[in-house]
Amino acid sequence: MSESPERDALLALMVRTPDEPGVLHALTSVFLKHRANITHVDIAERRVDSSTVYFELEDVSAPDALIGDLESLPIVRAVERAPSFQKVYGKRIIVVGGGAQVGQVVVGAVAEADRHNIRGEKISVDTIPLVGEEELAAATRAVARLPRAVALVLAGALMGGEVARAVYEIREKGIIVLSLNMPGSVPDAADLVVSDPVQCGVMAVMAVSESASFDISRQRGRRY
Amino acid sequence: MSESPERDALLALMVRTPDEPGVLHALTSVFLKHRANITHVDIAERRVDSSTVYFELEDVSAPDALIGDLESLPIVRAVERAPSFQKVYGKRIIVVGGGAQVGQVVVGAVAEADRHNIRGEKISVDTIPLVGEEELAAATRAVARLPRAVALVLAGALMGGEVARAVYEIREKGIIVLSLNMPGSVPDAADLVVSDPVQCGVMAVMAVSESASFDISRQRGRRY
Repeated sequence: MSESPERDALLALMVRTPDEPGVLHALTSVFLKHRANITHVDIAERRVDSSTVYFELEDVSAPDALIGDLESLPIVRAVERAPSFQKVYGKRIIVVGGGAQVGQVVVGAVAEADRHNIRGEKISVDTIPLVGEEELAAATRAVARLPRAVALVLAGALMGGEVARAVYEIREKGIIVLSLNMPGSVPDAADLVVSDPVQCGVMAVMAVSESASFDISRQRGRRY
Repeated sequence: MSESPERDALLALMVRTPDEPGVLHALTSVFLKHRANITHVDIAERRVDSSTVYFELEDVSAPDALIGDLESLPIVRAVERAPSFQKVYGKRIIVVGGGAQVGQVVVGAVAEADRHNIRGEKISVDTIPLVGEEELAAATRAVARLPRAVALVLAGALMGGEVARAVYEIREKGIIVLSLNMPGSVPDAADLVVSDPVQCGVMAVMAVSESASFDISRQRGRRY
């Protein structure tokens, strides 16, 4: 990576090891020794003979010493610094639903995110086209455990039941939920209801942006 | 979660613990004992007094015994099974670029993914609107370490230099790269070049779909 990792608040590392049980246990012993807090882990690459694990760490007082300790583990083949996902992809808005509306929500969200990102923010828009109560509810619940996810837009023409229950659950966990205006109990469960799909996508970005003067707490329960 | 996790090939677990150094090290000791392979880890939730870690494990022969061993650790407050991200969100296509084109690529990709997902596939479309050579190159390189990412679409009006080098690097790592037709060296570096942004999004989905009779290896180097 050509970028300077010093600009990150986090220390982001790619660690190449053999693909075998016990690797993560050995690596985390080094983080424990350095009292580093792991905020993100991923198996970034799995090959037949090797595996690359990606870590984001905070509270690292001596990054070079930590990297040196990793490199001295027998299982470690290489350690490389990388820019963090938070820095590269930023906050995530998740759009879930089906049909014509979901594409139009994304057009609004992507156009608005483009305008914010040009001015230095980092907002991504992730879309999973889906139908069916069970699948929508599972996708809704999973948003709460997606890294960097801050808002969900439900874009469909009928959503309720288990999906509405999932909406209440993830709102409890701090996710902002927007819904198109539609039949079913999901609009009542959402923070904000917007009828036009492009406008709904735009408002989702405004709700999570740091630069927009749009306060979701003042909009809660409203319908546009 | 109301879904049966037995249908997953992977064992997916949410583990609630205090937010303190050493947690991951303690948890992985249980996985090591069970010779379970960790394919995904995330810090799903961080609160003042607790943290929830999400794991996807494979090669687990006795899931109930493994969960029991986790629960008997003093730091573990709760263990819950969950459907895996692979099952909920599936493969990811990443769209990177700026301006009018990026939204149109996403319209094509989301509409096509909707058609595939209705028939049982799981394909997501993740978009980060971005401009600038350094930022585009970083976003391109990061695709290779994003979980479940299989293809990248570069949607802009001028991309080359460091971005093209990043394209070659991630193609080496198995990521399929599509590019709009544009000035700069990125189209030459990509697997496939498509002039119309909606068509480009559609083809990205076809290239990663299991059901489409579209073989990227036969299309490599072509321009449409």
